[in-house]
Amino acid sequence: MSKTIKKIAVLTSGGDSPGMNAAIRAVVRTCAYHEIECFGVYRGYEGLIEGDFQKMDARSVKGIINKGGTFLKSARSKEFRTKEGRQQAYNKLIEAEIDGLVAIGGDGTFTGAMVFNQEFGFPVIGIPGTIDNDIVGTTNTLGFDTALNTVVDAIDKIRDTASSHNRLFFVEVMGRDVGHIALNAGIAGGAEEILIPEEDLGLDRLVESLNRSRKSGKTSSIVIVAEGDKIGKNIFELKDFVDENLEGYDVRVSVLGHMQRGGAPSCFDRVLASRMGVKAVESLLEGKSTYMVGLLNGKMELTPLEKAIKGKTKINLELLRVSDIMST
Amino acid sequence: MSKTIKKIAVLTSGGDSPGMNAAIRAVVRTCAYHEIECFGVYRGYEGLIEGDFQKMDARSVKGIINKGGTFLKSARSKEFRTKEGRQQAYNKLIEAEIDGLVAIGGDGTFTGAMVFNQEFGFPVIGIPGTIDNDIVGTTNTLGFDTALNTVVDAIDKIRDTASSHNRLFFVEVMGRDVGHIALNAGIAGGAEEILIPEEDLGLDRLVESLNRSRKSGKTSSIVIVAEGDKIGKNIFELKDFVDENLEGYDVRVSVLGHMQRGGAPSCFDRVLASRMGVKAVESLLEGKSTYMVGLLNGKMELTPLEKAIKGKTKINLELLRVSDIMST
Amino acid sequence: MSKTIKKIAVLTSGGDSPGMNAAIRAVVRTCAYHEIECFGVYRGYEGLIEGDFQKMDARSVKGIINKGGTFLKSARSKEFRTKEGRQQAYNKLIEAEIDGLVAIGGDGTFTGAMVFNQEFGFPVIGIPGTIDNDIVGTTNTLGFDTALNTVVDAIDKIRDTASSHNRLFFVEVMGRDVGHIALNAGIAGGAEEILIPEEDLGLDRLVESLNRSRKSGKTSSIVIVAEGDKIGKNIFELKDFVDENLEGYDVRVSVLGHMQRGGAPSCFDRVLASRMGVKAVESLLEGKSTYMVGLLNGKMELTPLEKAIKGKTKINLELLRVSDIMST
Amino acid sequence: MSKTIKKIAVLTSGGDSPGMNAAIRAVVRTCAYHEIECFGVYRGYEGLIEGDFQKMDARSVKGIINKGGTFLKSARSKEFRTKEGRQQAYNKLIEAEIDGLVAIGGDGTFTGAMVFNQEFGFPVIGIPGTIDNDIVGTTNTLGFDTALNTVVDAIDKIRDTASSHNRLFFVEVMGRDVGHIALNAGIAGGAEEILIPEEDLGLDRLVESLNRSRKSGKTSSIVIVAEGDKIGKNIFELKDFVDENLEGYDVRVSVLGHMQRGGAPSCFDRVLASRMGVKAVESLLEGKSTYMVGLLNGKMELTPLEKAIKGKTKINLELLRVSDIMST
Repeated sequence: MSKTIKKIAVLTSGGDSPGMNAAIRAVVRTCAYHEIECFGVYRGYEGLIEGDFQKMDARSVKGIINKGGTFLKSARSKEFRTKEGRQQAYNKLIEAEIDGLVAIGGDGTFTGAMVFNQEFGFPVIGIPGTIDNDIVGTTNTLGFDTALNTVVDAIDKIRDTASSHNRLFFVEVMGRDVGHIALNAGIAGGAEEILIPEEDLGLDRLVESLNRSRKSGKTSSIVIVAEGDKIGKNIFELKDFVDENLEGYDVRVSVLGHMQRGGAPSCFDRVLASRMGVKAVESLLEGKSTYMVGLLNGKMELTPLEKAIKGKTKINLELLRVSDIMST
Repeated sequence: MSKTIKKIAVLTSGGDSPGMNAAIRAVVRTCAYHEIECFGVYRGYEGLIEGDFQKMDARSVKGIINKGGTFLKSARSKEFRTKEGRQQAYNKLIEAEIDGLVAIGGDGTFTGAMVFNQEFGFPVIGIPGTIDNDIVGTTNTLGFDTALNTVVDAIDKIRDTASSHNRLFFVEVMGRDVGHIALNAGIAGGAEEILIPEEDLGLDRLVESLNRSRKSGKTSSIVIVAEGDKIGKNIFELKDFVDENLEGYDVRVSVLGHMQRGGAPSCFDRVLASRMGVKAVESLLEGKSTYMVGLLNGKMELTPLEKAIKGKTKINLELLRVSDIMST
Repeated sequence: MSKTIKKIAVLTSGGDSPGMNAAIRAVVRTCAYHEIECFGVYRGYEGLIEGDFQKMDARSVKGIINKGGTFLKSARSKEFRTKEGRQQAYNKLIEAEIDGLVAIGGDGTFTGAMVFNQEFGFPVIGIPGTIDNDIVGTTNTLGFDTALNTVVDAIDKIRDTASSHNRLFFVEVMGRDVGHIALNAGIAGGAEEILIPEEDLGLDRLVESLNRSRKSGKTSSIVIVAEGDKIGKNIFELKDFVDENLEGYDVRVSVLGHMQRGGAPSCFDRVLASRMGVKAVESLLEGKSTYMVGLLNGKMELTPLEKAIKGKTKINLELLRVSDIMST
Repeated sequence: MSKTIKKIAVLTSGGDSPGMNAAIRAVVRTCAYHEIECFGVYRGYEGLIEGDFQKMDARSVKGIINKGGTFLKSARSKEFRTKEGRQQAYNKLIEAEIDGLVAIGGDGTFTGAMVFNQEFGFPVIGIPGTIDNDIVGTTNTLGFDTALNTVVDAIDKIRDTASSHNRLFFVEVMGRDVGHIALNAGIAGGAEEILIPEEDLGLDRLVESLNRSRKSGKTSSIVIVAEGDKIGKNIFELKDFVDENLEGYDVRVSVLGHMQRGGAPSCFDRVLASRMGVKAVESLLEGKSTYMVGLLNGKMELTPLEKAIKGKTKINLELLRVSDIMST
């Protein structure tokens, strides 16, 4: 049986996402509610190794629920990938009598947490924080909903200028391996075509689709391209290809970039972060470890970290079909 | 066996909500995709009775996915509550050879659709469009997510001035019979207390909570009050009560009002609207009738209109608890 | 000749407005630039009396340029209106060897600063921070531009629901004595009529205007009412009046309230705040006192505090005419 | 003496900017107010040549004041640069008995209008619509204020992720020949350095500034780069340069792109558009021609088109200094 948890540490690691601050706040306040101590670790595993953490109470996290980014800061730690680094992190935790860890981040963060647990038996719970929504075991990762709204707002603005000039825009959104942002934001932005890594549509289909859309009377078009799209060309090559092969198009490219990671979290992400924070702390208190908290069928559920990492999210085929129908 | 559907009408009725335009667009484009005709009906059942509808093609709904409100306009129709009114509506539909109806709205809209179907056997499918999220058979009604973000944005602004002045704000949000907006936006806005119709907390608890929160070092507080809160006092009486019974508070009231109904729909609501529109039309084409389309466990599902109307949504008890913990 | 200034204090007082944080930041950083010390005073004159201030360097004001409200907090101080209160404030300043004060706020703030200077000869410079734009000597007070955008965003949302239902909305905006917010936001929101304190239009004109607008084919209307409108009825009485005297209108009321004071400042207000902060500190360093910094013809200029307080801003008659023409 | 104007045409040309729709609306409604006819011309001078215009009344421009882009669409017309093209445009205008033209756009638009007037004596008035603010004779071009807010909002988001990761971001904003957007948005976004075409700072200064800022304790930095910056390297080369020459920096690049042109216009731009539209029409009615309307010292003033085109806006040196002080 697991020993009673009395002090919990929380950190954010990997790429930041909106809602991380809200999740930290939830972890800290749930600790306060259960009258156990909570420590905020700066710069992810890097700060763990350096012992760069500090005690936090309910008031320490005041006014951060609506702030983007993570005030604990995030970092990728090379040292934590070494046995020595992890040993040192463990020593620092033991020294401070901390007996549980909540790690907020994505794949890499969870892998680190799992290895750490395997080596030292240290209780860890993960909270999925990444805008990419590429983690199995939750319908939504923290920040995904906010990023979608940011992207859609940008597409709306680009649409204004696209239709004023009867132009074709290629808009690149984040998603190196997964097309969740592209697919959802594409539908919501009324995109004429959406290119995602999960589907190799081929250039022919794109050309055909654009021609059809032009014939149907559309004077401007927006094509959403996920970073990791496998069509074999990057977004600037796509532009060149269309310039050369399609007539009558005035093509422009827009790469939305890092603004997709920032901004005040949406209501959904703030509520999700709050629920996840509560669940993470209470899972540790119940003696659970190496799980990720997630939203499944509207409820907070636990998924083994191993499954969360190794799994691969699937693209929603219904959405693909909806996208096709909408670009009629 | 149902006869083949060849012409579909779509209308919006009852209070408007963000995403209605996106749903109309989806209905029209799904009809275009399946090469059947689609008619947009103006002013809900009122326009049906007057034959105020017009043929729409894919281009008719261009540029509306991001617009709040409903370009078909909405209305409450007294006449449609009479047998004569409904008979006339039926005559107009038959005259135009329309053989299916998609009705976008809430409780009242669905009741009308159901009675209409019972009397004339006319195929109807409902799409739940209301910001209140008070319909059984879908985890989200159209517009709920957008309204939440609007409310949270307003709370964030009020928080700025509340903390600058160490004030207590009572903020009234929509929700005559249900507290879904209050509960979610309250958590996301970091509210110190949330008053909802489903829970009669009593004034004593409110006073106790405010005192506790003051003692814990909070210098400003926000209490979210759902319109329909059953605490026995309206929001201005609440202010007077606190003015008289609590010391050291500078109390203000803010009633957010109708702006909660408007604005560009969120990404979530646009995608939901698109999915619902496709499902509604294709359900009619499959010979289904008197169902509402909804989102259940991430999928588009049908629920009998009767169940959707008679059901009563339940408040998420986990959220109530999260709210309590967060206001530690 | 004035002695050299070596330590400056800055405070915010009266109603908060977006941009106050940006102005504090500018004061602090300008001090750092000129290598003099800067103290942030909490809760306005109240904190001055209590000696509640603290030394700040360039890093103390990091990350606040985009935050609404004022992190120094604001308050109205009864004690500072007494000779004893002001004497105590003076003592505290002298004790800390502070020899100049930047006061950010409105009328009341400046009156306090002026009296303080008259009694103790203490150098003071004012920065006009209020959303109402009711200060002579600057074309824009800090926060006015941001509040306008907040109000217009709310009107846009209300317009969505107004046109969906063919309704008439009375929307109350801030402005107890002046109609600057109402007039500008009314034009930008496409209001059919704007009621401001500076003009007593009388109910007859309102009725006439609404009837004309109805006849011209408008199906929904928005009337912006400044808090301080002198039409002799409050906004709810206006609704009742129209309900009784105009046919065919479905009237609603929305009081925007305190959210108008909050939110991230607009680009304009942030730049203005930065310029004002620089000018305020450098004016003190040049030996100036009892002036307000302001924007006149695109440049930073000084106006005697006395003139700023006693003056009365005039409504822009051209805007009134533009409003009339636009509601054609 | 000029003959009486009875029919006016309005067009938008060149790059679109937020507020163009509001300006069209103002032109149309001012015509309605003065009971003269108004024609909307599609696709700028292209539509003029093709006779692609249509009569508009007050209701034709309903609901567009808050929409980005231009519903009349814009285009660059090669044909209008030829004598034949202009002759044909003139013929079309005469045919429709139109006797005055309002041209909304930038440099190129005004040059076209001026040549057209020189050849045919056709009365023209210009409205400056461009986000770049690069036109002499107005303190603000239409769309500048909106674009600034869009850029600042993006910088705020990028700042979230920059400070979470202690990164350096180069952010490119529009402004091929002028740095107005970069300078204002840079100050408002709290940029550590701003690179504009008007100033050749040299790479050394940039390096020095970044080093100083790092030493002062800043862990993240944002450098705003105007498209047309003359530092001799494009933004990606800048990144490479810093990667190679500065230690300890994790550098990222973000090119904001075309979203800067779109979006709902700010309150300021809507009011400005309304005032400019009124002034433009009434100037034509007063027999004026080949002027541009503009905002000077808070008032609507006329500037000869020739002067507007040939002039070169100057960078506000006070702002440059403020920027330096703020990045202390």
